[in-house]
Amino acid sequence: MREELIYYPPDFSATVLEAAPGVTTEAAAADGVVPRTFYATTNYPTYVKQAGAWRLVQRQRMDAAIVQNPETGEFECTEMRKVRAGQPVVVGSVEDGSRGVLVHSNGFRPAGGAAAAADAFGFMSTGPSRERPRNYRRIAQVIANHQNPDGHTIWVLGPAVVHSGSREAMSWLIDHGYVATIFAGNALATHDIEYALYGTALGMDREGEAIAGGHRHHMDAINAVRGAGSIAAAVEAGLIKNGIMYSATKNSIPFVLAGSIRDDGPLPEVLTDALDAQDAMRGYTQQATLVVMLATMLHSIATGNMMPTFVEKGGTLHPVYTVAVDAAEMVISKLIDRGTHQAFGIVRNADDFLVRIVQELQKLEAEHERDHAPGAAEPPTR
Amino acid sequence: MREELIYYPPDFSATVLEAAPGVTTEAAAADGVVPRTFYATTNYPTYVKQAGAWRLVQRQRMDAAIVQNPETGEFECTEMRKVRAGQPVVVGSVEDGSRGVLVHSNGFRPAGGAAAAADAFGFMSTGPSRERPRNYRRIAQVIANHQNPDGHTIWVLGPAVVHSGSREAMSWLIDHGYVATIFAGNALATHDIEYALYGTALGMDREGEAIAGGHRHHMDAINAVRGAGSIAAAVEAGLIKNGIMYSATKNSIPFVLAGSIRDDGPLPEVLTDALDAQDAMRGYTQQATLVVMLATMLHSIATGNMMPTFVEKGGTLHPVYTVAVDAAEMVISKLIDRGTHQAFGIVRNADDFLVRIVQELQKLEAEHERDHAPGAAEPPTR
Amino acid sequence: MREELIYYPPDFSATVLEAAPGVTTEAAAADGVVPRTFYATTNYPTYVKQAGAWRLVQRQRMDAAIVQNPETGEFECTEMRKVRAGQPVVVGSVEDGSRGVLVHSNGFRPAGGAAAAADAFGFMSTGPSRERPRNYRRIAQVIANHQNPDGHTIWVLGPAVVHSGSREAMSWLIDHGYVATIFAGNALATHDIEYALYGTALGMDREGEAIAGGHRHHMDAINAVRGAGSIAAAVEAGLIKNGIMYSATKNSIPFVLAGSIRDDGPLPEVLTDALDAQDAMRGYTQQATLVVMLATMLHSIATGNMMPTFVEKGGTLHPVYTVAVDAAEMVISKLIDRGTHQAFGIVRNADDFLVRIVQELQKLEAEHERDHAPGAAEPPTR
Amino acid sequence: MREELIYYPPDFSATVLEAAPGVTTEAAAADGVVPRTFYATTNYPTYVKQAGAWRLVQRQRMDAAIVQNPETGEFECTEMRKVRAGQPVVVGSVEDGSRGVLVHSNGFRPAGGAAAAADAFGFMSTGPSRERPRNYRRIAQVIANHQNPDGHTIWVLGPAVVHSGSREAMSWLIDHGYVATIFAGNALATHDIEYALYGTALGMDREGEAIAGGHRHHMDAINAVRGAGSIAAAVEAGLIKNGIMYSATKNSIPFVLAGSIRDDGPLPEVLTDALDAQDAMRGYTQQATLVVMLATMLHSIATGNMMPTFVEKGGTLHPVYTVAVDAAEMVISKLIDRGTHQAFGIVRNADDFLVRIVQELQKLEAEHERDHAPGAAEPPTR
Repeated sequence: MREELIYYPPDFSATVLEAAPGVTTEAAAADGVVPRTFYATTNYPTYVKQAGAWRLVQRQRMDAAIVQNPETGEFECTEMRKVRAGQPVVVGSVEDGSRGVLVHSNGFRPAGGAAAAADAFGFMSTGPSRERPRNYRRIAQVIANHQNPDGHTIWVLGPAVVHSGSREAMSWLIDHGYVATIFAGNALATHDIEYALYGTALGMDREGEAIAGGHRHHMDAINAVRGAGSIAAAVEAGLIKNGIMYSATKNSIPFVLAGSIRDDGPLPEVLTDALDAQDAMRGYTQQATLVVMLATMLHSIATGNMMPTFVEKGGTLHPVYTVAVDAAEMVISKLIDRGTHQAFGIVRNADDFLVRIVQELQKLEAEHERDHAPGAAEPPTR
Repeated sequence: MREELIYYPPDFSATVLEAAPGVTTEAAAADGVVPRTFYATTNYPTYVKQAGAWRLVQRQRMDAAIVQNPETGEFECTEMRKVRAGQPVVVGSVEDGSRGVLVHSNGFRPAGGAAAAADAFGFMSTGPSRERPRNYRRIAQVIANHQNPDGHTIWVLGPAVVHSGSREAMSWLIDHGYVATIFAGNALATHDIEYALYGTALGMDREGEAIAGGHRHHMDAINAVRGAGSIAAAVEAGLIKNGIMYSATKNSIPFVLAGSIRDDGPLPEVLTDALDAQDAMRGYTQQATLVVMLATMLHSIATGNMMPTFVEKGGTLHPVYTVAVDAAEMVISKLIDRGTHQAFGIVRNADDFLVRIVQELQKLEAEHERDHAPGAAEPPTR
Repeated sequence: MREELIYYPPDFSATVLEAAPGVTTEAAAADGVVPRTFYATTNYPTYVKQAGAWRLVQRQRMDAAIVQNPETGEFECTEMRKVRAGQPVVVGSVEDGSRGVLVHSNGFRPAGGAAAAADAFGFMSTGPSRERPRNYRRIAQVIANHQNPDGHTIWVLGPAVVHSGSREAMSWLIDHGYVATIFAGNALATHDIEYALYGTALGMDREGEAIAGGHRHHMDAINAVRGAGSIAAAVEAGLIKNGIMYSATKNSIPFVLAGSIRDDGPLPEVLTDALDAQDAMRGYTQQATLVVMLATMLHSIATGNMMPTFVEKGGTLHPVYTVAVDAAEMVISKLIDRGTHQAFGIVRNADDFLVRIVQELQKLEAEHERDHAPGAAEPPTR
Repeated sequence: MREELIYYPPDFSATVLEAAPGVTTEAAAADGVVPRTFYATTNYPTYVKQAGAWRLVQRQRMDAAIVQNPETGEFECTEMRKVRAGQPVVVGSVEDGSRGVLVHSNGFRPAGGAAAAADAFGFMSTGPSRERPRNYRRIAQVIANHQNPDGHTIWVLGPAVVHSGSREAMSWLIDHGYVATIFAGNALATHDIEYALYGTALGMDREGEAIAGGHRHHMDAINAVRGAGSIAAAVEAGLIKNGIMYSATKNSIPFVLAGSIRDDGPLPEVLTDALDAQDAMRGYTQQATLVVMLATMLHSIATGNMMPTFVEKGGTLHPVYTVAVDAAEMVISKLIDRGTHQAFGIVRNADDFLVRIVQELQKLEAEHERDHAPGAAEPPTR
């Protein structure tokens, strides 16, 4: 994991940047349409020059336009569909600063220089493979480093998290502060609630055995929640007594349930319009310090599309890490190819990953408690 | 393929059906919520008894409720979310007819009885595998049997159809009447149009080579179409000159582009609300006689969820067939497990499948032409 | 797992069996060639009738011929290549007993009848999938039931067991009596020993990081063992101090290392002739009560080919179980399709499987110890 | 494909090479054991210095030792197991020439320099993916360039070539001179012959349908060939009338059938000892100009292990190309990672690949014939 990386801003006193003209903009001709030569963004820290000063672009994401917000004067990454007629849109394709747009793609470097770099980056040097060993303890340490409220970890969950049997592990992670936001779909929530109500997921029990009449449990679960009015109401009413959605509700952890054409029901909280769901997700991706993607290609790619590679905290930039877990190398390669850099791919089953991560976090918590017990000796530096 | 199957309706004069009471209904308590014991539908021909008569349920699909339409008096499969407060909803779980609901799951049988059955069904007897031979000629014959306007084939297309290089093959199929409706997403249409405009798909040319600056082509393509107002307008204006969307537009073949949270843009015709997209898709699945699913799990499962296993034509029921093509056994198994029966799985690359099917259809067309040329001898019966 | 199944022998007093003629044999015309109509065996209990008596065929395996041993008079499953000219070979293809050959394929049934059956068999009812939950505790209990010396578990190991990081787990299993025999190849042993000598497997360390100069470690490891003369000698000499081969050697657990054309070296103990390796393996498969196959298609299929579905212990037949673990559904389907019945497929990573099984076995051992401690209350029956 | 690459030998007049000492050797202490610091080879052109002169190492392959042949004085790559006590073995790990060993890993460059390079290499620039287009015409041209007798193409065939239905395509390639040598296993040959005798492969007919009694066909096929004495004899006797082994026999194309522990039978020509098979294979890999690997990981990796990246023809070195075809990205990545450089991965089904390649070769042949017909205009340069 690329931990302990420090952000080195561009040297704006360099001749080329000093001499660069201001950024060029062109007015959008119509709502939702950008100038033909609009500058298409990356997910790296990006600066534009105006009135002689370089300013960090806000709300970074890839494949967006850069528009100057008429109210704040800030330059912001804006989805094409959100650009309004007449707004000034940055144009051009040069991004080395010489034309007023600078992408700073290698700003994060290890504190100790090259030697440290080898060490810090080596952990994730080769491609994802089912045949590579996995140091769950180190991954758990990364997750621990991003615990609430200092970090903000988004967990992107596919329904296999429930099917493969790790509702309890996921609940534990929520209860213990390792989850800041959940991104999922109707299926994950439905099968989690089905399990809470009937002890099955898609009609199969905890052994993976099909239960008589179980095929309708997911419809019954949706109907029950629709009857209650919302997942929150169903938890409040004591209908849902455990699981992922229960823990999220009890701990006031926000979730975005994005709808899809595959959905039954759907559950009341599901955002059925893809653009509404994107907007809701993007609000959280701008704050994330770590993203863990589990067994879902659709939601993971969507999240990767709108994630910056960095986050601003306390006036300085920090890298955003991604851990992607899937049983298939292909999914992980696809995720990483799509522009989700600083991603660490783990070819494992969601259930095994979660159970082993929880075990390691429990050990870390026990060690921490022991080290900080009254009368404990000075804790060793890791 | 289960071709030449004949529908044998239930024997309503059987004692159990004669003696059965009428179906039981219960009023929905609120909009979008069904009675707790609602009858959850399958995708098989289903009959309900009322006033002593058995009536075929309309708009069959699975995981729906059966509601009596207040205007027509017909019983219709209705999605939970579409049920209105007060509407009578069929309740109960018995489906052998004894309580007024009859699912006729084995009504289709080969004309010739058991011996013919072995022949007709054998074609699809074992599970999907990359190691099984594929008789492209026979699959082509099935597709030819469902040519417009007698048949109605829905093609469900994933973006890999464009990426793997088969835009031309797909266009040929549309131009030659083998496609009645297209289901796809923003990505398929965007990369198809990107190719028409820039000769690349996701920035890669026809050799799969990344082109300098190609990463922004898909955004440029979307922007160009948004500027034109619609795909149809962009074809009309001569902006788009070839490809899948071009052929669909020129041949007035309807398409449903269902949005997802992964989408850039999106293109103007994309239905961003999943429920709107489901409604649009369902209109077509009720008419389909054949469904071909190519390299997309999301759209294929969505289609399978709302497809009946039969279609009414000329007062009698006919089976609906599904051909599912994917490079991975797992996807096809998942599709078939989800309730898409009468499905025939083909573990092949979308491009190879399409190119070889087109070759076989061209041969069949040439044979047909030769056989029907003036002065040709009596064509042999197949 | 099909545990607690009881063998119900055929009812030889049934009329058809009573009336059946003796088995027909024909002399092999040449060494290694069987009569054209030879009876090809299954892996189920098989009986042949001679002189009015039904006798259980010995050394059962599939795809073999049945030859009457000239010395003992026993009928034995014999590989085609081992049949000698003139030996009497059973011919015919009828296996319902009416011609003197009876395959008893459903002899194992749960003690309690149908109700118990549902329970006993349900555990493995549906196909292998990465989305199914896995009850590691129940699998661990099965492994515990077959601990040495009462049971005899063959572990079939692919090199991914070492690559994915579970040498320690595997060593623990050997040290604690859960391994009776190991089947593997040159690669598993080489990378295990490479790890013992250099801390790498195929040049990668325990984080999966490539080590400078590590690409030659596997050749150095082979050379070192060849220099020592054998793996056993290298362990004796203190060269190899830990790992799978170390534990096997120290605990006198036999192993068969079967050679393949992919092999470097090979290590001295490797049986480079495939037929020698088959002979060595078959000796053990006749005694096995449980077979665990981990991440190797080649060795697993080879083992499955020669395994009977039953084992004779104390004069009665017991079923032989197979647990197949692989990251890919396809491998497991292929294994099971090849005739390895009573197999339970687990779609998980070898490392996660082993680590979690060891954890469960440790819990079972602790429970057992607690229950049997002096002064402990009567242990509860499971 | 890296076609039209020219070999630029090292500049032996460079100071470092001029000044370098002769290579250091050490005598092997025992048969089959090399000195601890032996130089482990790569598959690139390698030179050793002796008596002031640099000499190309013969019989290049990776993971071998370099031994000076006592009879010829040549330095030869020699498998560890073939080194005899007392033979001089090159030691050391420096391979930049400064210690007498020089690996020339970038000797092949396009004739036209850098600009041409981009073009020549671009064809294979990104990783293998089922979503990449494939230009079958260009691949066919490469295969045509290596037609017998000028080229020497080894085809490495897995049994899926037969199962997926491409015996005819493969036979056509043999009959038309595109195959110089075949590497396969007992299964490929057995199922090919089973098909010739019974019209099934592993008991399934050309539609993939299981045939009654078909499960024993592969054993019957083996038995029949064993009875005939050999595959060649069975062809001669008219027993085998078509297929891959038939065409190979009729065209006197050599084949190596390497045994494995999975084998039934085996067929008489199978080399059951892995080391014998390696020796036989290596004889051919030294002459190969192109290697096509189809749907087999075991045989492909074995071949890759012993292949040089170049071949000497007419006194100059030429690159050896590899085309690897498999339905799974993982297999191809594994192949390429194992050191088989200049490999071009194609994620397609073996059957689709072969059928489409044959179609393209037929077109190329037709074009060639037309261009070279008497009275034809000057053929255009490609």
